[in-house]
Amino acid sequence: MVNEVKKVNYVDRETTLCISLAARPSNHGVRFHNWLYAELGLNYLYKAVAPADITAAVAGIRGLNIRGAGVSMPYKGDVIPLIDELDPSAERIRSVNTIVNNDGHLVGYNTDYTAVYHLLEEHRVDPNAPVAIKGSGGMANAVVAALADYGLHGTVVARNHTTGSALASRYGWEYSATVPEDAKILVNVTPMGMNGPDEDVVSFGEDEIDRADVIFDCVALPVETPLIKLAKAKGKHTIDGGEVAALQAAEQFHLYTGVLPTNEQIIAAEEFSK
Amino acid sequence: MVNEVKKVNYVDRETTLCISLAARPSNHGVRFHNWLYAELGLNYLYKAVAPADITAAVAGIRGLNIRGAGVSMPYKGDVIPLIDELDPSAERIRSVNTIVNNDGHLVGYNTDYTAVYHLLEEHRVDPNAPVAIKGSGGMANAVVAALADYGLHGTVVARNHTTGSALASRYGWEYSATVPEDAKILVNVTPMGMNGPDEDVVSFGEDEIDRADVIFDCVALPVETPLIKLAKAKGKHTIDGGEVAALQAAEQFHLYTGVLPTNEQIIAAEEFSK
Repeated sequence: MVNEVKKVNYVDRETTLCISLAARPSNHGVRFHNWLYAELGLNYLYKAVAPADITAAVAGIRGLNIRGAGVSMPYKGDVIPLIDELDPSAERIRSVNTIVNNDGHLVGYNTDYTAVYHLLEEHRVDPNAPVAIKGSGGMANAVVAALADYGLHGTVVARNHTTGSALASRYGWEYSATVPEDAKILVNVTPMGMNGPDEDVVSFGEDEIDRADVIFDCVALPVETPLIKLAKAKGKHTIDGGEVAALQAAEQFHLYTGVLPTNEQIIAAEEFSK
Repeated sequence: MVNEVKKVNYVDRETTLCISLAARPSNHGVRFHNWLYAELGLNYLYKAVAPADITAAVAGIRGLNIRGAGVSMPYKGDVIPLIDELDPSAERIRSVNTIVNNDGHLVGYNTDYTAVYHLLEEHRVDPNAPVAIKGSGGMANAVVAALADYGLHGTVVARNHTTGSALASRYGWEYSATVPEDAKILVNVTPMGMNGPDEDVVSFGEDEIDRADVIFDCVALPVETPLIKLAKAKGKHTIDGGEVAALQAAEQFHLYTGVLPTNEQIIAAEEFSK
């Protein structure tokens, strides 16, 4: 805790307010954004909110001139009819994780989608390599859309046939209950390896990892999942969930403030937010 | 400024948010409340807001679980149909300067009214002394109601016959264009003596002051108005606008947090807020 309780919060009538809307807010976004505001000398404040009512909450974004709002589960779809415009990143996947208030005109974005897309570019991932992705929830939907728009093709691997095959067919991908042998890019968007009951589970088999070139784990807590550790030990090219979380938060930050933090600042903000 | 820009604001997912709603927010309330939160170790944050739309703003108080809102001009009447219940302090004068959100049930108060009432008690003002009050606006309405409910009777002195006589008749008082000779309590609720074009104007005549016992000026900027200075020089009992401002803010603070600051804390918070 850099700041002590005794310190008076630096807020005045000019301070721009940003919020997050989540059923169970975490402290990560609050610490990440407020640290960067202080670092960059921006008169902004970020507050996590568990909304009482999502319709009234979105009215409040307009009515109280709140500049931006992060949107988490279960509101990512609920907010769509309440806002004025969808950015292509959110339109594509019908899921909003960021609302920007431009003088009362609310625009919805999905920075998970854009973060994954930009990471594929940054890591120069071969768009012709076959992908196998595990997971079929909301985040998996954003990830498959970004992979597909990057030009990749592959297979959704999910125990749940209904959601797995629906996700695959939405983007013209295949569905399978098992990982195809030719998969060169393995992507995990399940809770396997995440702090909790499945933290020791490696989300792909050792032979599958051996056959692949790129291992992409969307789990951010911890960043060093068993999958990432094993892939690194085998000398594979890895992309981790910490990169996704930091980049999507940086893109939110940019949308709210117009300022793009440097990589060093993002890393320091993430360090502060742990 | 106790806190520097480089300090990270102490806000987390548990922080309770309070706001003020004003067409032209000042920094006074922001500094007063945030200083007391820090002093008392309360995990609260106060933000001044110039609402885009008062209906949506009140929806936002509910939707975003905002604990309380100070209400300034021109919204003191507008919010009445938007909330669930009026405390007698606001019901009496049909004017709300404070909204408290009890789990989605919004109650409107008027702490200007209660502050004036409590100051009359605190200063042991004689309820049988005739009053002359100058002013006929919204604050004058709150003040006359408090004076009348304390048991006082008197005369509204206003250049505007329409608003002046309407205010007087609302509480069974007299209306006059001039100060009656028997007035023992003089109350100013006009901008006379306030920082600005009328800052050098003494709101009552010297002979009127000589004949009176108690001089009550509602102007808070500055606290030492020409009226208060002259009355003090003449050894009169004075009540100043700083006392009204501090007490009404302390009562708001109590309504939001359940904690009543000490007099020393209120004075220190006022000093910080200047």
